[in-house]
Amino acid sequence: MNKIFKNQKTILSSPVNLLSSHLLAIEGMQKYEIEGLLDRANYFANLDRHSDTKKLSGYVVLNVFFENSTRTRVSFELAARRLGAEVINISLINSSIKKGESLLDTASTLNAMRPDLLIVRHPHSGAPHLFADYLNCSIINAGDGRHEHPTQALLDALTIKRRIGHLEGLKISICGDIANSRVARSNIHLLNIMGAEVRCIAPSTLMPLNLEKLGVNCFYNMEEGIKDADVVMLLRLQNERMSGTENPSEREYFKFFGLDETKLSLANSNAVIMHPGPMNRGVEIASALADDTNRSLIKTQVEMGVAVRMSIIESLIHTKTKGLEK
Amino acid sequence: MNKIFKNQKTILSSPVNLLSSHLLAIEGMQKYEIEGLLDRANYFANLDRHSDTKKLSGYVVLNVFFENSTRTRVSFELAARRLGAEVINISLINSSIKKGESLLDTASTLNAMRPDLLIVRHPHSGAPHLFADYLNCSIINAGDGRHEHPTQALLDALTIKRRIGHLEGLKISICGDIANSRVARSNIHLLNIMGAEVRCIAPSTLMPLNLEKLGVNCFYNMEEGIKDADVVMLLRLQNERMSGTENPSEREYFKFFGLDETKLSLANSNAVIMHPGPMNRGVEIASALADDTNRSLIKTQVEMGVAVRMSIIESLIHTKTKGLEK
Amino acid sequence: MNKIFKNQKTILSSPVNLLSSHLLAIEGMQKYEIEGLLDRANYFANLDRHSDTKKLSGYVVLNVFFENSTRTRVSFELAARRLGAEVINISLINSSIKKGESLLDTASTLNAMRPDLLIVRHPHSGAPHLFADYLNCSIINAGDGRHEHPTQALLDALTIKRRIGHLEGLKISICGDIANSRVARSNIHLLNIMGAEVRCIAPSTLMPLNLEKLGVNCFYNMEEGIKDADVVMLLRLQNERMSGTENPSEREYFKFFGLDETKLSLANSNAVIMHPGPMNRGVEIASALADDTNRSLIKTQVEMGVAVRMSIIESLIHTKTKGLEK
Repeated sequence: MNKIFKNQKTILSSPVNLLSSHLLAIEGMQKYEIEGLLDRANYFANLDRHSDTKKLSGYVVLNVFFENSTRTRVSFELAARRLGAEVINISLINSSIKKGESLLDTASTLNAMRPDLLIVRHPHSGAPHLFADYLNCSIINAGDGRHEHPTQALLDALTIKRRIGHLEGLKISICGDIANSRVARSNIHLLNIMGAEVRCIAPSTLMPLNLEKLGVNCFYNMEEGIKDADVVMLLRLQNERMSGTENPSEREYFKFFGLDETKLSLANSNAVIMHPGPMNRGVEIASALADDTNRSLIKTQVEMGVAVRMSIIESLIHTKTKGLEK
Repeated sequence: MNKIFKNQKTILSSPVNLLSSHLLAIEGMQKYEIEGLLDRANYFANLDRHSDTKKLSGYVVLNVFFENSTRTRVSFELAARRLGAEVINISLINSSIKKGESLLDTASTLNAMRPDLLIVRHPHSGAPHLFADYLNCSIINAGDGRHEHPTQALLDALTIKRRIGHLEGLKISICGDIANSRVARSNIHLLNIMGAEVRCIAPSTLMPLNLEKLGVNCFYNMEEGIKDADVVMLLRLQNERMSGTENPSEREYFKFFGLDETKLSLANSNAVIMHPGPMNRGVEIASALADDTNRSLIKTQVEMGVAVRMSIIESLIHTKTKGLEK
Repeated sequence: MNKIFKNQKTILSSPVNLLSSHLLAIEGMQKYEIEGLLDRANYFANLDRHSDTKKLSGYVVLNVFFENSTRTRVSFELAARRLGAEVINISLINSSIKKGESLLDTASTLNAMRPDLLIVRHPHSGAPHLFADYLNCSIINAGDGRHEHPTQALLDALTIKRRIGHLEGLKISICGDIANSRVARSNIHLLNIMGAEVRCIAPSTLMPLNLEKLGVNCFYNMEEGIKDADVVMLLRLQNERMSGTENPSEREYFKFFGLDETKLSLANSNAVIMHPGPMNRGVEIASALADDTNRSLIKTQVEMGVAVRMSIIESLIHTKTKGLEK
């Protein structure tokens, strides 16, 4: 499996030097940065989990969530702890923000705790950028509003590379609620940078205007959009959009935009299936397909999440430290 | 105190080899397994807590609670940390399960995080078995519905052994809401395996049908059920059953099934009192009896909880590792 | 900056011997104890955070909150972890207390877990004292009702000492909801012990009766109370008191008791501004003043919180251990 990656020795010796000491978005990243993070993540994925180095011992990571996400929180916590760092979870969903404190004051308070790294998920686009402007430590965007979710795109890329061997030239169809999806946005940027051909499939109510400007092809018909695809990436339909003005019903959504055997038969015969989870079975995807381990990479995505986040955390702290040495 | 246990040297050198790499229920366990776990737990209980070995350093334990229980969660967390493991708490009471994700998908996601051990409490009987079927790591049942709560029965057994010296031949009266109690069920199995005589006392609305088939004697009158008992084990009455169709009132419950001096005088003069907590004083037990440290072992039960869970966690990881070596 | 503190070598070699193995209140503490805690905290504040000793490795700290406070919880957690201790967070806001368990039973249960130190925040005055009476470990009061918040007063004192060099003889004006403020009460005691001149400023509805007995001067007019002050310490106005019988409106409060440039001009020209956070900008303080880093020490207060709590935790465990050796 490793032949597809760079020489193992090189990988082992070097966390990546990034241009920024933050990971706020995929947009604007260089191809070599993404490749470096994926190479290093692949090394962590191949490591026996018990022989992890504890190189970040003594470092403090704050895991700050303004929006619930057990899955992402745990993945980051596991990644940081496997590197030896101390992790402090801070749920600010019901906290002083509601007592009237401004986001800037919260940022300032967190900064005064002097963390080495702060991971932030926030319901508003741009909140992690504001943290990056006002805090002295590295910031990782763990999802902000409808903007970006860069670690999800990186783990998706690692999952594809480990299965198919490369990203360049692949036809990748992203299907679902594109308009509201930070996962879609980060994936579009990453896949474009890496030279894949990106297609977006959605009902017109869930397709953003002018999406073609990002360099993707838009399809309002899944049969057309999925044709010859190497990867079919499904997006979660949020409960509040399952039926209403944007969408007539779950059943109707599945009929037109849910992945089933018939639609999948139009894709490349080796096509793989991905979903960032949690899935709505029978809405975005037929249950049997989700469980078909020959084609579904959904479990692998979760597993690669930890490896990719180890790579990112290590590289950011490495980059920050290098910066300070200069 | 240690004379009652096996030779300390033997105990020190060996965590127990269990038949299963999971602890899902007491039912079906072998006597030697229970004895082994208790011996090792007794060793941990006698250890100066600061000289604990950190033999599980680098192991990851997920503490997954689908039902609130601060007491049990903290006891497991403390046990795993004293052994050097990393513990990640995951409260799924208000999580993606409610977003429509199935329990199997949650299990699959947790598995992809590659934990070494997963502790699970769930309001539905059998949920930990489902986890054991689908995950690659060891599972501990921290209480499932009305089914079992095996670590509670083991800590109760350790508490009795440290006080009385043995379990065999003891008369043990379990009194309260037997029908809804996983604590009662696990204790009945364990005490039967270890050769104690088990009696259950409850109002008829809270006594399950055909309980005699489990090898216990049933009493609907506390005075009869408590006669000559060596141990009186009280169960928590859930708030929702305190008054209503199953039970006329708290006061009436205490009059007939609450432990007071008069009823206790019918038991063995050395009888000890136990309760899994949290207690309803004046409902299940007279306040003065709960605080009588000559007879009440309630505090010791909590303390033994940590020691028993250390023993179980260590043994399961030992068993799993042994299994992999074969 | 260090010249203002005792000889560094002395500090390095000695955590403070306290008279009590608990920190329940500032009232009753000796001057040398406060000085010793501040000296040691200053040492921790100056330390490169990555070279902290892990001298409390193997010690277990329970962080028990009966009242929400992310800021204080995280500060204590960070302090204990930087010293190498294991920290277990226990939120009892929605826990068994509400199932009808008494506070004493909760204390007893926590004690049976055998922690080395327990940090407790509780909405009722005196709860930490009850814990201290019934538990075998050291207790830190992290805020109890309207009584005391001793670690806040100590971090405020460290912040002032690092800026001004001493506490003795300073004119310190505390302004706001004095009646309901444990922060005010702890600060009044500490500043009196250290020889500062304390003034309290509040509308009559928020000023306690007979406050002069604590050795402070009371002002119902901010212009008078702030005159020549070296330190202006603002208190948070709780939402529930922002408008109603105690206070006509936020705007009116700001007009009379909020700190603005005009009122501040009456203080000493070098006067510094403090606030325990979270702030209500435009209510207790004009936004521009809060952000004026020449005069506002609000961020420093948060930073000193971790250092002060490290000093306290270390000293209590040191004191407890010394006591056991005797």
